[in-house]
Amino acid sequence: MPTSAVTPIRWTEDRTALVVLDQTRLPAECVEVELRTVREIFDAMYCLKVRGAPLIGITAAMGVAALARQDLMAEPKILRYDVGRWCDYFATARSTAVNLSWALWRMRDITRDNEVDDTATLVEALFDEAQAIWDEDAAMCDAIGGHAVGLIPDGGRVLTHCNAGALATGGIGTALAPVYLAHAQGNALEVFVGETRPLLQGSRLTAWELQQAGLDVRVITDSMAGAFFQRTKPDVVLVGADRIAANGDVANKIGTYGLAVLAKHHGVPFYVLAPTSTVDLASGSGDEMPIEHRGEEEIRNGFGTLTSPEGVPIWSPAFDVTPSELITGIITEYGIIEAPFAEGLEAAVEAADDALDDARHSHGE
Amino acid sequence: MPTSAVTPIRWTEDRTALVVLDQTRLPAECVEVELRTVREIFDAMYCLKVRGAPLIGITAAMGVAALARQDLMAEPKILRYDVGRWCDYFATARSTAVNLSWALWRMRDITRDNEVDDTATLVEALFDEAQAIWDEDAAMCDAIGGHAVGLIPDGGRVLTHCNAGALATGGIGTALAPVYLAHAQGNALEVFVGETRPLLQGSRLTAWELQQAGLDVRVITDSMAGAFFQRTKPDVVLVGADRIAANGDVANKIGTYGLAVLAKHHGVPFYVLAPTSTVDLASGSGDEMPIEHRGEEEIRNGFGTLTSPEGVPIWSPAFDVTPSELITGIITEYGIIEAPFAEGLEAAVEAADDALDDARHSHGE
Repeated sequence: MPTSAVTPIRWTEDRTALVVLDQTRLPAECVEVELRTVREIFDAMYCLKVRGAPLIGITAAMGVAALARQDLMAEPKILRYDVGRWCDYFATARSTAVNLSWALWRMRDITRDNEVDDTATLVEALFDEAQAIWDEDAAMCDAIGGHAVGLIPDGGRVLTHCNAGALATGGIGTALAPVYLAHAQGNALEVFVGETRPLLQGSRLTAWELQQAGLDVRVITDSMAGAFFQRTKPDVVLVGADRIAANGDVANKIGTYGLAVLAKHHGVPFYVLAPTSTVDLASGSGDEMPIEHRGEEEIRNGFGTLTSPEGVPIWSPAFDVTPSELITGIITEYGIIEAPFAEGLEAAVEAADDALDDARHSHGE
Repeated sequence: MPTSAVTPIRWTEDRTALVVLDQTRLPAECVEVELRTVREIFDAMYCLKVRGAPLIGITAAMGVAALARQDLMAEPKILRYDVGRWCDYFATARSTAVNLSWALWRMRDITRDNEVDDTATLVEALFDEAQAIWDEDAAMCDAIGGHAVGLIPDGGRVLTHCNAGALATGGIGTALAPVYLAHAQGNALEVFVGETRPLLQGSRLTAWELQQAGLDVRVITDSMAGAFFQRTKPDVVLVGADRIAANGDVANKIGTYGLAVLAKHHGVPFYVLAPTSTVDLASGSGDEMPIEHRGEEEIRNGFGTLTSPEGVPIWSPAFDVTPSELITGIITEYGIIEAPFAEGLEAAVEAADDALDDARHSHGE
């Protein structure tokens, strides 16, 4: 499997803290920051130093594991209580990405299931679970890439949005996994990415990580997507997801829905690539998914320059919902699911649950 | 007729120079700059200190008239030669807006028609023509507003793009003319405007000028337009135009086409508002219209912050073309033209030509 050239997260040597690449400072500066306290971990997620639905889940899980190791002297009861508290707090850092609550649920579960009444063992179990969440995510990225790589014609043009790459996951990304894989296979593909206002994850992050890996990447503003479809026309649109409802509606970075409408209008296939941990069967449709709204200042003053007058309200949903009828296929680590999506999504979630149970069972033996 | 609260251009007292509001510094600072030399006038247009198709035409015409007045001591022959040279140069400042070449053609025509072999008279004639271009534009704005105000339901939601307002014209704007008029009539409308990357004319200029006039205006990023259509839904989309082809295809600020596709998808009427000077019958369709491309740095480094890596190419067309089939109506100073557009556009251009001939004739009497 190919690897990306970037590493967005790692443990410190003693595993009592995390080191993350501060993604808010890319591409101008490549700076790592250490996260040691509950507040630092929360803020890194809230302020988007780490971002991307899978990576947020990994960060929260690793954060809980690192904090637990600082608690080695505590009673197991106290540690269990603390883990519950940290999980509750971290879950509020971002509201749309379901991987966050999913990863925290797995960490909390460790403190519930584990019968060992010994802090050191509990701390190791939490570490193992966080590491497993990370490793599984990397494997899922590879699997997604393998299922999707055939969708990119040789020398083809891929349009993507935001960043669903190595900077958003524990591996080679979701939407970018087939891109890395195609490149490794010698496909001279071209990747186009929208800036992704307000926080410019497309131009700041996707362009940067693909450039690091030697790919042919070009940037457009989000407003140029229409002209791009009209004049150059992508062969395929590949995007990630922050939450997928049971019926196949997809919440993803604001702007995704507009691209889906353009893809439909121009007859271009539109695929969503995400691990099954992104699927939220409890949300029947997009209407039931919470959409995070962000502060006005990110738009009004996002670059240290006043770009909109003080006093003029700004509407700033961080995500939009692409209805399933605009989606050609949803690609998880278990393969490509096509419409109607409900059955395929349920089967994928079941397969993932079974795989998790199997892993825990074999671990317990 | 209502007026806007802002004045983007004026003569200096002695009419040998222009004073323009430096639109690149809005909304942070409201600063006027004097344009006295050929280079200053050219740069103000090229660097978008003045922008908006009608205002560019007005600026170029006023610039020629002001420069001519500095030439009062010159032989008429020399002045005629200079006017030709200035017109040639100014015409290259921006390539898509047809009003620019149209206004310069009118100025050049003055030097050709005028039989008076006396510099002072020629200078006055050039001044009168530039002033006429400005006054006519203000009247056209009022007329466009009058034809379009009925399209905005009471308390309705208008979506616009870029800036086609007082800052783009000699009057109350084109797309914003009915907005000002509706507001003056007591309609408690809400206006939404996309930021309009890369240069943010929507959030910097439209939001500012409507705020100055006391209107209820809100900003979204361009990427939020899809979610806005889905969740709040505008009653009508009103945009300006930089060039309208004979078949009704419309070149306008990049991003307009994407809004037109969204409007179609959501069944929302989409209107283009522009004076007939924007109609270019020589361009049969959108394919024949030149599209200005701008530099990568405007996007990569537009806010004094590196927002895309050095070395990653950026595709930056300044305009896109909305095909006529996505347009509900084109509104000029002569009324609303509906599909098929060819006949109505031709009639409007004829009416405008006749009006100009009449004006010159009565002026000559």
